[in-house]
Amino acid sequence: MTPQQTVEAFIGHWNSGDIDAMLALCADGIVYHNIPMEPVHGTAAMRSMVEGFMADIAKCDWETHAIAANGSTVLTERTDGFTFKDGRHAAIRVMGAFELGADGLITAWRDYFDMAEFAREFAPA
Amino acid sequence: MTPQQTVEAFIGHWNSGDIDAMLALCADGIVYHNIPMEPVHGTAAMRSMVEGFMADIAKCDWETHAIAANGSTVLTERTDGFTFKDGRHAAIRVMGAFELGADGLITAWRDYFDMAEFAREFAPA
Repeated sequence: MTPQQTVEAFIGHWNSGDIDAMLALCADGIVYHNIPMEPVHGTAAMRSMVEGFMADIAKCDWETHAIAANGSTVLTERTDGFTFKDGRHAAIRVMGAFELGADGLITAWRDYFDMAEFAREFAPA
Repeated sequence: MTPQQTVEAFIGHWNSGDIDAMLALCADGIVYHNIPMEPVHGTAAMRSMVEGFMADIAKCDWETHAIAANGSTVLTERTDGFTFKDGRHAAIRVMGAFELGADGLITAWRDYFDMAEFAREFAPA
């Protein structure tokens, strides 16, 4: 897979709810950084964070508006949709940068968004 | 110029403080959207906004960490540095998406960042 195809597959795994397949595209030492928050280091910590985050979520519907690659870096513009188990829906406008290693795995993922938008969209019903 | 070269020149004009040259790369009907704020429509409104915004700023120092193009869309990952006239410094972590028209001018610019980071960095001394 090209770096862009890997990132497209990664986003596809979020949308199909396959956390194992999503993490299988990440290098063990990945740095996952939601920019307004602290970075998460490594796939074990990433799995823990994602599983906690997904506990109330039934389905992801992340729409990629734009994607472009330059060497082993892939940049995306997305709207990340989430359907909660109680039926509510959230949508976050986000851009994300991905860096891939020589083995084709994702070594860094940085998402840029407005924390207030996230808090508003994820506010309890 | 390629779309990527146009965006690189556009950022260069911010860094050299040349608002006229920056706007000359924008289509009249540009939509300039700092995502956490309302979009600005057209170069006249954009000039007014930028000139107001720049009133207290001596120098921009925007560093492009990554840039990638896909057709007429260019995506960037940056740290936008600002030196105020009173010597203070601000830095905003941002990703930006640019769309270019057939004539090579920028028709859309969307910047994604955390509004709380912006407010904190731009807080009065």
